[in-house]
Amino acid sequence: MEFLRLAKREEIYKEYFPLFKPLRSEQVPLFDAPGYFAAEDIIAPEDVPYFPRSTVDGYAVRAQDTVGASSENPVLLKIKGEVPMASRPGISLEPGTAVKIWTGGWLPEGADAVVMLENASLTGEFVEIYRPVARGENVLQVGDDVRAGEVIVERGKKLRAQEIGLLQTLGILEVQVIRKPRVLLIPTGNELVEPWQEPRDGKIRETNSITVSSLIREYCEVVKRHPIVRDNRKELYEVLRKNMAEFDLILISGGSSKGSGDFAVGAIEEFEGSEILYHGVYISPGKPTIFARVKEKPIMGLPGHPVSSFVSTYLFVIPFLKYLQGSKDFFPRPSGYLIAGQDIPSKAGREEWIRVKRDGDFVYPLFSESGILSSLVKSDGLVRIPENLEGVHKGSQVEFYPL
Amino acid sequence: MEFLRLAKREEIYKEYFPLFKPLRSEQVPLFDAPGYFAAEDIIAPEDVPYFPRSTVDGYAVRAQDTVGASSENPVLLKIKGEVPMASRPGISLEPGTAVKIWTGGWLPEGADAVVMLENASLTGEFVEIYRPVARGENVLQVGDDVRAGEVIVERGKKLRAQEIGLLQTLGILEVQVIRKPRVLLIPTGNELVEPWQEPRDGKIRETNSITVSSLIREYCEVVKRHPIVRDNRKELYEVLRKNMAEFDLILISGGSSKGSGDFAVGAIEEFEGSEILYHGVYISPGKPTIFARVKEKPIMGLPGHPVSSFVSTYLFVIPFLKYLQGSKDFFPRPSGYLIAGQDIPSKAGREEWIRVKRDGDFVYPLFSESGILSSLVKSDGLVRIPENLEGVHKGSQVEFYPL
Repeated sequence: MEFLRLAKREEIYKEYFPLFKPLRSEQVPLFDAPGYFAAEDIIAPEDVPYFPRSTVDGYAVRAQDTVGASSENPVLLKIKGEVPMASRPGISLEPGTAVKIWTGGWLPEGADAVVMLENASLTGEFVEIYRPVARGENVLQVGDDVRAGEVIVERGKKLRAQEIGLLQTLGILEVQVIRKPRVLLIPTGNELVEPWQEPRDGKIRETNSITVSSLIREYCEVVKRHPIVRDNRKELYEVLRKNMAEFDLILISGGSSKGSGDFAVGAIEEFEGSEILYHGVYISPGKPTIFARVKEKPIMGLPGHPVSSFVSTYLFVIPFLKYLQGSKDFFPRPSGYLIAGQDIPSKAGREEWIRVKRDGDFVYPLFSESGILSSLVKSDGLVRIPENLEGVHKGSQVEFYPL
Repeated sequence: MEFLRLAKREEIYKEYFPLFKPLRSEQVPLFDAPGYFAAEDIIAPEDVPYFPRSTVDGYAVRAQDTVGASSENPVLLKIKGEVPMASRPGISLEPGTAVKIWTGGWLPEGADAVVMLENASLTGEFVEIYRPVARGENVLQVGDDVRAGEVIVERGKKLRAQEIGLLQTLGILEVQVIRKPRVLLIPTGNELVEPWQEPRDGKIRETNSITVSSLIREYCEVVKRHPIVRDNRKELYEVLRKNMAEFDLILISGGSSKGSGDFAVGAIEEFEGSEILYHGVYISPGKPTIFARVKEKPIMGLPGHPVSSFVSTYLFVIPFLKYLQGSKDFFPRPSGYLIAGQDIPSKAGREEWIRVKRDGDFVYPLFSESGILSSLVKSDGLVRIPENLEGVHKGSQVEFYPL
């Protein structure tokens, strides 16, 4: 196979992605926002907490009153009452006194620390303190969690459960996010039949589109699958022409290798203002990947082999979908290191992404043709072997990318 | 705080989860199946591939004809034509001949290997072969990917993109899965106001329910949030009684610590046939967690502190939701190892789950009160410090759990 313009993986993220603009923003209710990326810095409108709050159940005290307290020589403080939950304390503390308080309670004026229940005991009107506390101990001061005016979620950050929770704490119930991309997926190939048809005479059921859409749907507003297009430049050109305006990204599955006559590239090049950014990547599997643009519109061509298609989607399509949503942290990174349970050979000169089975802290390579989808079903993740290595030895630490 | 019956984390997965039965199964279209768990072993109805298939573009040959071929001494074979894509070959190979074939093409009778295009060159009616091939080289035999009758997806396995793809390859367009749980989430606490209300006088906006539901929604058919319930045993009992039948799991947020009068346990115990399985776990944060049953129905009580609530959901609710869907692989496991960028102290005698910020291969602990939600927003994951350690030193490898 010959490729017109080969790219390195890093180059794709750093030089080709930035040729495109992230999508526009929209307002969504907080409840629907998990998984979106913030379109702007989000500023805290108020302090959290907005009152000095006890973090334990116990006794609000003046720290200096507890100096020297011990089990043998407890400090005796007079109980002045109790802070009712979810109310202003309505009491203030004079020297030598204490007030019962619960977790989350409002620290009364005059108090500056809380002694935990288990370090004290009540005897009539008095409480015995068995341990000194420092000023501020077991107390959350105003703004200790979040300070009004602070950036709490940066632009481009993914809204996870914890961001959603913090926004709600602050009463922010709608949020400006980047909208999710609309994606068109075009399966191509004379050898394909629709999934509900019976394949005969060397034909096979079209499968890559459901695998790819299962992988990417969480990052998309919609993934529309087009019916199968034959290996025909004119036919693919027409499909592209009709759909281009409606979608933010077009994925062509198959048609990117010599065997299919490279007709994907041909169809793209028929458009005025088209540019093939690269055709082929220095990785395995996943080499015959295309990235192109027609004016502002991005088009990606995915390999026809199911494993190559999967790896290309993982390494390029998902990061690009995140990029389009304004993410700055879109590139794949290992979820940690595991140990090679056996030697993993690899060819120097190209980065290899090895399917592996995991067993505890160890990973074992699953070697097979890139046409073999069952190897992905058996795998728990991918291991990256950098291009400057001829594999790694049993016992080495390897980068793990869970699937 | 006193706890009635403390449990260890492992014990919960191994002894308490199995007290409940996984949910019943249902049929779903393959397209909707990603994220579900298989309700039964899925058997391949046919071989993949169902014909001997070339994995490269090149020339179908008899391997023995290529013995000794080299650039200096190429073997000359007569071209007998080309295998049309997506058709039966319609040709058979005699000794000394070759047939042009594309990736995915049907290997003609008589051929037993394929020479790659780049190792051959066409000269008129002949092709020069520059490298010998072994029998079977560049060929996928019938059943090499999947054999008819083989279990391709085991019962309890999660259906990921690759399982979906393989099922479609085999023409399996509907699949029997375990249905997802219906979950009711009941926020409790006198100090809480609804998120759209303005908190005053020591009250705060209820937040845990949206955090928890954001974390769990992918594992649930529905997560219904009940309006806030006051710290009142009778009121909570009534809410439980009215809703028990409709849901597969009930989560009570708050009300599991002494400060709130332990009224969650009280409300559960009013039911006949109720049992508090444990009340408190040997971990930090997340200690005041309840697991109970009323007859067959599971009820979990989550801590009120936002970080404790988050960690409990991560360690117990999500695994239990997977368990209810028949998963055998439901317990949290590290996504790999990273390196402590500084000392991480911890108390021996309880397992600690430390929020960390990640920088490349290093993680840095974020220490703060468990009431501080912003620390979770700053964190990229959790690191587990086992109960038998008093922390780990800078430079140590630590288990990483991404968030």
